[in-house]
Amino acid sequence: MTQRFAVIGIDHRHVYELTQYLIDAGLECAGWWNVTTNPHVLEGFRRRFPHLPEVAERERLMDDQGIGLVVTAAIPSERAALAIEAMRRGKDVLADKPGITTRADLAAVQAAVAETRRKFTVAFGDRWASPASARARELVQAGAIGRLVSTTGMSPHRMNRQTRPDWFWDARTNGSILVDIGCHQIDSFLHLTGREEAEIVHAAIRSVAPERTPVADFQDWGEMILRNDVCTATMQMHWFTPDGLADWGDGRAFIWGTEGFIELRKNLDLLGRDGGQHLFLTNNAKTEYIACAGQKVGTFRAFAADLRDRTETAMTQSHCFAVCRLALEAEERALAG
Amino acid sequence: MTQRFAVIGIDHRHVYELTQYLIDAGLECAGWWNVTTNPHVLEGFRRRFPHLPEVAERERLMDDQGIGLVVTAAIPSERAALAIEAMRRGKDVLADKPGITTRADLAAVQAAVAETRRKFTVAFGDRWASPASARARELVQAGAIGRLVSTTGMSPHRMNRQTRPDWFWDARTNGSILVDIGCHQIDSFLHLTGREEAEIVHAAIRSVAPERTPVADFQDWGEMILRNDVCTATMQMHWFTPDGLADWGDGRAFIWGTEGFIELRKNLDLLGRDGGQHLFLTNNAKTEYIACAGQKVGTFRAFAADLRDRTETAMTQSHCFAVCRLALEAEERALAG
Repeated sequence: MTQRFAVIGIDHRHVYELTQYLIDAGLECAGWWNVTTNPHVLEGFRRRFPHLPEVAERERLMDDQGIGLVVTAAIPSERAALAIEAMRRGKDVLADKPGITTRADLAAVQAAVAETRRKFTVAFGDRWASPASARARELVQAGAIGRLVSTTGMSPHRMNRQTRPDWFWDARTNGSILVDIGCHQIDSFLHLTGREEAEIVHAAIRSVAPERTPVADFQDWGEMILRNDVCTATMQMHWFTPDGLADWGDGRAFIWGTEGFIELRKNLDLLGRDGGQHLFLTNNAKTEYIACAGQKVGTFRAFAADLRDRTETAMTQSHCFAVCRLALEAEERALAG
Repeated sequence: MTQRFAVIGIDHRHVYELTQYLIDAGLECAGWWNVTTNPHVLEGFRRRFPHLPEVAERERLMDDQGIGLVVTAAIPSERAALAIEAMRRGKDVLADKPGITTRADLAAVQAAVAETRRKFTVAFGDRWASPASARARELVQAGAIGRLVSTTGMSPHRMNRQTRPDWFWDARTNGSILVDIGCHQIDSFLHLTGREEAEIVHAAIRSVAPERTPVADFQDWGEMILRNDVCTATMQMHWFTPDGLADWGDGRAFIWGTEGFIELRKNLDLLGRDGGQHLFLTNNAKTEYIACAGQKVGTFRAFAADLRDRTETAMTQSHCFAVCRLALEAEERALAG
């Protein structure tokens, strides 16, 4: 039987991808709630998915016993409460990142998962949808670069000031920069190292260029160093992608091992090869380029199977909570100074 | 009148470059002392500079009143004492990096400079000899990427275990990894920001892969985060260049501004353009590639003029000491844990 999902919360445009990936993974969209703080996304959703049932009554979707999954890209600070409501009504939840923006919400969601036995999953798209990241992990696990020494991630994002809703500019509604866009790198680090623990060695949040934003305290630069028993990780995330770049950010990852290293150029290869998802592997034998664009990642298909079989192959519940917890810990550390 | 220099200390192969750069800058090598801990370098020096006078008596060079500059690539921990001796005998000093490996040596050299009015200069080759770094600074100063937000440096080095002398493996003689190869990035950061002050936000030293080294505590990974009133800087340095890389290290720098960013690929462009010294500039107007290989840097010529004119155009004395001091501070911070 085809699994059915509802979309409740179309405040961030990430909802397009989440919906499409789930449909591609074989799920059926039973309907989407058309109330939003973001008219751009309402229009975009209608244009992209003209055949999906538009629903004005949120309760109809929450009440529908034939719907097993709620997908949400609501205002980040409202995702936890929505998820808890959905889980209590028998539904699993797939949230856009960040799924959780406060310690209290994390505790409440953890309690709701324990109570309802439903799944609360955050789609960390930077890894879930990146064939280059998937290939890098395969190479590391196969020993292509020896033991892990360090990882370094750089995640620049274009600000797109004109199309951002009000809640984007406030860390209380959008989540801090470490939680909002830092969570991707924490997810990648834990996934690559196969761990759910890490020490926050360093964390900083800055508001460098208030002249570019409607508020003075927008967090436009974040950095972290995490460490666990496998390796150390340096993470940078920020909102300084210039207009002259051909994509929304020149996302990179450098993975160093005792016997080699991998560079990922996820979005693009500056004035080089076409497209994205480029992987460069150098070890004691050679330097090799591996084109990963178009390669299947399979995480959303694995997630669909997990929903059906009650397994945890795409991502364990504890991994998901570990990412959320570490991001909040890093934020606390950064704000403490 | 041509300025004359002596080479005293050929324990590290960097002495080849220092000697050549000075000759290229118009100085004359009056002689070089042929005692060393490193027979590879003795042989290499003879082969590269067959016409330069080889001297067995160190005192002859120190006593020669016609020699104004002593150049040294002695064992790092012995450079300060040698420099102090040379300055007290009326000579300026150009040291390979690291010029100073302890706080006590820093204080002693500072006192000797004040007492003798001679110059103590460390050639931070990663910048002094890099046209890509020089061009990046020009672009930043011209406002090509707006105000500085952050810099990130990655300095992998090939270990070359077979040709390293014993003192290389001991931080007490070679300097810690933050002092030995971290000093380059501190130099670049201070130079780019036009400052001599920075806060050590984070510093760490690790011995990741003792199976690769003759000692268990060789420092094969170092990282720092520094910050001043201009921007923040992330610095990584390590000894994990794999054999399959076409150069001794894939040195990179990422310079982020409020209106653009610069990437430097100093050693090579992985499976891309030939040679080194590649610069990529992206700002609000465009992404542009700038080939910097072969462009003149001019730092050694400026240094030669400084010797003659008693000016400080290549590098101020206080900048040099600031780099040494910050590297030692970072080391202390890292060792404190």
